[in-house]
Amino acid sequence: MTDRNVGEGHLSFVLSALEYPNEDVRTRAQTRLDSLTKPVGSLGRLEDVAVDYLGIIGKVAPPRLDPVVFTLAADHGVTAEGVSAYPQSVTAQMVKNFVHGGAGVNVLARHAGASLCLVDMGVAGDLGQYGGLRNHKIAPGTKNFLREPAMSHEQALRSIQVGIDLAKAACADGKNLLAVGEMGIGNTTASAAIASVLTGQRVEQVTGRGTGVDDQRLKHKVSVIEQALALHQPSSSDGLDVLTKVGGFEIGGMVGLMLGAADCRLPIVLDGFITGASALIAVALEPKCREYLVASHVSQEPGHRIVLDHLGLEPLLDLRMRLGEGTGACLAVTLIHAALKLYSEMATFEEARVDGALPAS
Amino acid sequence: MTDRNVGEGHLSFVLSALEYPNEDVRTRAQTRLDSLTKPVGSLGRLEDVAVDYLGIIGKVAPPRLDPVVFTLAADHGVTAEGVSAYPQSVTAQMVKNFVHGGAGVNVLARHAGASLCLVDMGVAGDLGQYGGLRNHKIAPGTKNFLREPAMSHEQALRSIQVGIDLAKAACADGKNLLAVGEMGIGNTTASAAIASVLTGQRVEQVTGRGTGVDDQRLKHKVSVIEQALALHQPSSSDGLDVLTKVGGFEIGGMVGLMLGAADCRLPIVLDGFITGASALIAVALEPKCREYLVASHVSQEPGHRIVLDHLGLEPLLDLRMRLGEGTGACLAVTLIHAALKLYSEMATFEEARVDGALPAS
Repeated sequence: MTDRNVGEGHLSFVLSALEYPNEDVRTRAQTRLDSLTKPVGSLGRLEDVAVDYLGIIGKVAPPRLDPVVFTLAADHGVTAEGVSAYPQSVTAQMVKNFVHGGAGVNVLARHAGASLCLVDMGVAGDLGQYGGLRNHKIAPGTKNFLREPAMSHEQALRSIQVGIDLAKAACADGKNLLAVGEMGIGNTTASAAIASVLTGQRVEQVTGRGTGVDDQRLKHKVSVIEQALALHQPSSSDGLDVLTKVGGFEIGGMVGLMLGAADCRLPIVLDGFITGASALIAVALEPKCREYLVASHVSQEPGHRIVLDHLGLEPLLDLRMRLGEGTGACLAVTLIHAALKLYSEMATFEEARVDGALPAS
Repeated sequence: MTDRNVGEGHLSFVLSALEYPNEDVRTRAQTRLDSLTKPVGSLGRLEDVAVDYLGIIGKVAPPRLDPVVFTLAADHGVTAEGVSAYPQSVTAQMVKNFVHGGAGVNVLARHAGASLCLVDMGVAGDLGQYGGLRNHKIAPGTKNFLREPAMSHEQALRSIQVGIDLAKAACADGKNLLAVGEMGIGNTTASAAIASVLTGQRVEQVTGRGTGVDDQRLKHKVSVIEQALALHQPSSSDGLDVLTKVGGFEIGGMVGLMLGAADCRLPIVLDGFITGASALIAVALEPKCREYLVASHVSQEPGHRIVLDHLGLEPLLDLRMRLGEGTGACLAVTLIHAALKLYSEMATFEEARVDGALPAS
């Protein structure tokens, strides 16, 4: 194991050399699944989900699942260009809605039996004091990246470090499944810029309507991103450069959560397009990180499918959702939970005295 | 409302004239969804699921969900032709596994918070007395439909009546969401025969590997079904004729559950291919029944997609499952539950003081 530094001097953070999931555990987990009272392979992707989970945590016996959903919020200077259907003020208002338990992710985190960790990574304006909200504000929103880089190199590193620390604290707290979501008016614009650079697709291929812009504003959104990429020329081989120039503080935080989860050997469940763009940066920084990602769903945002294909991830759900916050991730947590219960609680052919398992079709 | 009789004399059963789901309730439910703190339509199919549910039960305020999964078991005489990967004895053994709580559907019904109702519709051999098992055995397995009709006209009607009575009893008991699943070695053969007649597709298009037959046995299975259809010539306009000639007792029971659910104005969640074949018969008997069906998932059995397309139903999940029992239906129950919680528990824009909802994209 060798450590390596990302960034330089006191702003660097340390990633231990990530490991691949445990192949021996994966094999043994599949053997157990094949002994259960069902035709071999007949639980389909639920079997893969269980094997992936156990291979990542490196244990054949599933622990009691204790998931946490991180919803990270931040504002985006590029909203000054009129790229979103909602005003910037909605970010802070929705954070208050999260704190009071009234948003979609609150309902679905409860449904999934997951705790919810709300983090202010950089919301514009003062949110005041809320018990349930963690203040890791890097700055009150990014700069308008049509004019200047979204953030400084130092801010990019700090945002990632916040995420790494959050993942490690959750792991120390006994959480054994992480999930991510976000809130930030304007963040599909940042994500489309990131996705274009890191997947190599044209901007219009990866840019969608976000919370619901019309045709004219969609065209404008594409143009703003194209101009920004022409101005900044972010390097497709440097995830940190992309984050700095066209990213967001919640995106940096999620990159850190993904790196931290992999460092702790915990799976982390993605949500929609913005979490996918964050994953592109995390994987650009550390390719092995990909092995720890679970794609919960594919959203209506057209760039999301492109991002998932680029990452080589197959979503569990396709419900035409496009809310973000972590809502799709919560639904996938319930499927992962179901898969692990099947693995643990089903009887084997021998236990149930059912005539022998036959080869898979 | 006019009643109509299916069958004749003392073997007929009565279906009240089914109604369509309540359009006014559907409209009001969508209005509520549009007032919640999310972009309009951004919960995708979860919004449709909530609107469908409420339109069917005819109430704008969701009740506390109390679901029940019916797993119906029966044997099939056609297994004598060697069409299945497992011996017929496995049906009874798996029923015992259900009773002891060790099968996939047990785990997933618990996960979904659903009660499980196990019904012997016609398992071969004596299962003995089990507390959790309802005995509605029509006969110890159907006849071999390669040689003679699977059942008598009277048995077909009785099997349907059992299902209608089970649905009505569940409704009287306060259950407000029904789901179906099955166990019966050989029942993908019966279902492929039904699907071929009622969708008009060739037998080889709708016949798959079931629990896992190899290429040679798959070819044999297709040939057995083709010969049976040539012998019996079931009428594609007469669901009862199809059930009688090539059906099964658990299939008849599920037809009855679907008709009974619609009669009680309750949604009923389908599972895999066999439940889909049953739905074809139910809809052939009473087309309005279709409005009460929820397609949980599409299975690996190739005929399933064809059946769902014919019914005009879009599955919620595609997880490459092919276990049956009601396992896929249970997962959909958790999604329906999630959809209704979102509908009930999310704050409106007004309540949360979030700047106004904007038109859908």
